[in-house]
Amino acid sequence: MTTDIEVARTVTLKKIGEIADKAGIPAESVFTHGRHLAKLDLDYVEQLRGKPDGHLILVTAINPTPPGEGKTTTTIGLGDALNRIGKRAVVALREPSLGPVFGRKGGATGGGRAQVAPMEAINLHFTGDFHAITAAHNLLAAMLDNHIYWGNALDIDLRAITWRRVADVNDRALRKITIGLGEGENGLPRETGFDITVASEVMAILCLADDLVDLQARLARIVVARKRDGTPVTAGDLQAAGAMAALLRDAIQPNLVQTLEHNPVLVHGGPFANIAHGCNSVIATRTAMKLGDFAVTEAGFGADLGAEKFFDIKCRSAGLTPSAVVIVATLRALKYQGGAPLKNVTEPNAEILARGLASLGRHIENMQRYGVPVVVGINHFAGDTDAEHAQLAKFCADKFGVKAIVCRHWAKGSAGAEELAHEVVALTQKTSNFAPLYALDLPLKDKIETIARSIYHAGGIALSARAEKDLARFEREGWNNLPVCIAKTPYSFSADETLLGAPEGHILPVREVRLSAGAGFVVAICGNVMTMPGLPRAPSANLIHLDAHGRIEGLF
Amino acid sequence: MTTDIEVARTVTLKKIGEIADKAGIPAESVFTHGRHLAKLDLDYVEQLRGKPDGHLILVTAINPTPPGEGKTTTTIGLGDALNRIGKRAVVALREPSLGPVFGRKGGATGGGRAQVAPMEAINLHFTGDFHAITAAHNLLAAMLDNHIYWGNALDIDLRAITWRRVADVNDRALRKITIGLGEGENGLPRETGFDITVASEVMAILCLADDLVDLQARLARIVVARKRDGTPVTAGDLQAAGAMAALLRDAIQPNLVQTLEHNPVLVHGGPFANIAHGCNSVIATRTAMKLGDFAVTEAGFGADLGAEKFFDIKCRSAGLTPSAVVIVATLRALKYQGGAPLKNVTEPNAEILARGLASLGRHIENMQRYGVPVVVGINHFAGDTDAEHAQLAKFCADKFGVKAIVCRHWAKGSAGAEELAHEVVALTQKTSNFAPLYALDLPLKDKIETIARSIYHAGGIALSARAEKDLARFEREGWNNLPVCIAKTPYSFSADETLLGAPEGHILPVREVRLSAGAGFVVAICGNVMTMPGLPRAPSANLIHLDAHGRIEGLF
Repeated sequence: MTTDIEVARTVTLKKIGEIADKAGIPAESVFTHGRHLAKLDLDYVEQLRGKPDGHLILVTAINPTPPGEGKTTTTIGLGDALNRIGKRAVVALREPSLGPVFGRKGGATGGGRAQVAPMEAINLHFTGDFHAITAAHNLLAAMLDNHIYWGNALDIDLRAITWRRVADVNDRALRKITIGLGEGENGLPRETGFDITVASEVMAILCLADDLVDLQARLARIVVARKRDGTPVTAGDLQAAGAMAALLRDAIQPNLVQTLEHNPVLVHGGPFANIAHGCNSVIATRTAMKLGDFAVTEAGFGADLGAEKFFDIKCRSAGLTPSAVVIVATLRALKYQGGAPLKNVTEPNAEILARGLASLGRHIENMQRYGVPVVVGINHFAGDTDAEHAQLAKFCADKFGVKAIVCRHWAKGSAGAEELAHEVVALTQKTSNFAPLYALDLPLKDKIETIARSIYHAGGIALSARAEKDLARFEREGWNNLPVCIAKTPYSFSADETLLGAPEGHILPVREVRLSAGAGFVVAICGNVMTMPGLPRAPSANLIHLDAHGRIEGLF
Repeated sequence: MTTDIEVARTVTLKKIGEIADKAGIPAESVFTHGRHLAKLDLDYVEQLRGKPDGHLILVTAINPTPPGEGKTTTTIGLGDALNRIGKRAVVALREPSLGPVFGRKGGATGGGRAQVAPMEAINLHFTGDFHAITAAHNLLAAMLDNHIYWGNALDIDLRAITWRRVADVNDRALRKITIGLGEGENGLPRETGFDITVASEVMAILCLADDLVDLQARLARIVVARKRDGTPVTAGDLQAAGAMAALLRDAIQPNLVQTLEHNPVLVHGGPFANIAHGCNSVIATRTAMKLGDFAVTEAGFGADLGAEKFFDIKCRSAGLTPSAVVIVATLRALKYQGGAPLKNVTEPNAEILARGLASLGRHIENMQRYGVPVVVGINHFAGDTDAEHAQLAKFCADKFGVKAIVCRHWAKGSAGAEELAHEVVALTQKTSNFAPLYALDLPLKDKIETIARSIYHAGGIALSARAEKDLARFEREGWNNLPVCIAKTPYSFSADETLLGAPEGHILPVREVRLSAGAGFVVAICGNVMTMPGLPRAPSANLIHLDAHGRIEGLF
């Protein structure tokens, strides 16, 4: 089988200046980074505000399964297909995290003939955005401990420091650490830890900020600790926000790359989809909507987490109106949701598929609840049968009036997603009645409950005593109008990852709540959330190396 | 007074492509990073090998003092002045460390009219080299702990792990930490710590590597720990070197920027000058020698540490022959060396200056010992008197046959360093009889002693029992042919920072020795060496911010 990198290397990329030119971006607004990457001048991005918006298309998916769905490839394939049928389309994607590239995940630049390139650069340092976020995050941490070291004038309670440190590496040994050891010259010993960079609130802030002024203001609002009287301590109190913003000044510029078919793609930002909202930057999405008549973007995990947050956090906060939603599914993933063991998901089985369709149906229904037209994209795999495709299509048409279209972009590039592109265009002729799920003036607890009942079909929520107390405190302190960001397993509609399909009546346990005041949401932690991955026994890093010509091998 | 950044902003920089063109670099070998930064294609750098070498000029200084010397400004001013008098000169400098920028140090891009630009970019993330080094270093650390977590097949002795982690931030709380806390799922608890990125052996390796093949081979040789049987464990044993090299593939490309007078400067790499050798990359120096008839570069700290390592480690390992040495001094610094209290160093005082000149004389003598022609550059400060300049010049001429030339590049740019430039050109007409101080086949202990006696004028060395034992082990294990890298205070010829002037007969205490097998030297630690700085009570980060136009303010 041909690997993704082998496919990518059969294509001669165009100079990024040509791609920018094709997208209508003037050369003086393009800051090239080598031959194939560029950042866009933020002044130019600002000037685009006057232009009318293109249609915003969200690509989401059913809950992730081991056999995989192909959300990113579908996003890229759809973008290429829209261009193929004569539309001006720009894709907006998240940047991959460096850490997992050396674990087992591989990159996050699509696959087959639906890839963004150059994958080596995008998957490694890219234009340095995540490094800038790491630096800004850790500068704040250093300034916090430095403040305490020099006398703690703000009277910070050492037991109430919530700001950890970050690194863009899978390093389980850093999850829980004690710092400040020594003879006093290193500060006060205290327990803390490192998260992976994508879990940083600075990442979420960068992705939700309107512009540099908003960025600096949001950074100043980050709550890092509590004083001994219980009141919050912010990055602004520590006089850290300005220096952090200076470190992020270039990182906030959206990055331009190309698909293997030489269409423009903005790859920018990549917050976690559990403790954060999981979408690329508002700035990139907005820019894609100005440059393209169609902007195609994706959200993290399945639609229950990713699309919900895309709508209720990102679109609401940025004032974006999505025109259509594509829900990506595969026969094998649906059969897994229907209860097939992993080894059997490639075998045709109408009964198990029918059971799995309940899960897809739930997602369609949820998306329709937001008032946005829906289409299902069936990501084709070798071995799929026409009968199963027909069964799937009939289910979607009969129950929801929604088309389910087989897509072969992985094997064929844009030619494989033409039909999907035509349906997306057709959907954008309909009116989008987009509205968020809940009003911001609902109490925080009710917002969590609304999501749990409406989207997850839970019977209710169960707050721990601590979560209850903290929510009340956030309300009291004036954060009652923030949206909520649910951190739960992506593998089920419930908080129990083994409950596949479309479970009903389960209870969503809220163990803990956290305030991301700079990003502008309250995180509800439901179950265990891992914010610092570990490496597997045989990490892919073992195989990555430079060949005699300095070319990177082993990256996939 | 006008600040450096204000001076810099009066100059309209040229596009980096124009600077590259002026330096004779073909456009297709220039990877621009925005308008004013570029990396050079390593293939192009390789192709330059066939060209003849320009003259290599080292700028070094007397031991650093609180009133300052101005080594970087002199390096830049001399480069500009050589260009002014019609020579083709290229400067090669170290990259600044991000950490100290937020402390109190400010940037490291020169000052006054002798600056490299754009200083905001160079002092912050620049082209991401240090972030790449951080990532490569910490990937190795994660792979080490991951190896232990999954069963420790190499039988690594947890008490004998020497590889720490790094971050490019001044964060004293990370100096001494315990990692791997928790219930076992985070690995085994052990004590370790973070150093600042410039202290990473990966930094030293990047700066000494010949090319990508050599880089990968050096990375594989890094010793990170010992097995329980005492034998070394390398990055190669952990199968980490290839992935680390992949992370460094772009970082090894030299960076091109410009002076305020639009002359080309390569700014690349920046290892610590105590536990490492303290010079910019071999690749940048070599490239400067190929592009220029004169390559002007600097070494860290004073000549006792910086120039010694430049000659005995860098020039020897890379096969470079320096043509001339400039020793930078100021009247105020010499008076400080002569015993004047800091508050009095600006007052004329012939007697105290005469005492301080002993220190300068020692440095001149040391440099002449290497067989390289010498000139002293007197960095002019307002308030300097002609009588003092004359006294200094007479001392250098009478005792060493060396010129001491007053330089005003800070105030006047290249016009202020013309006389120095002419003398440097004259010196390069003489034959350089460059030879390193010691032979590599001397025992490691004798190498340390040779440096101590010859350069520091010590009466001898005193090895701790542990250092003695470890040196014997390194000899036994086959590292006997490495050069040594002394880590001692830069403020004195001795290991006692209060011993100013030209002390004699002191004993150099070697507390500990460390193996940098990848970089290719054995470090002798003499006294306390700080590898993770802290922030001051009121760090400069407090003042740095973005103005309403997104311009960085408060950086200096």
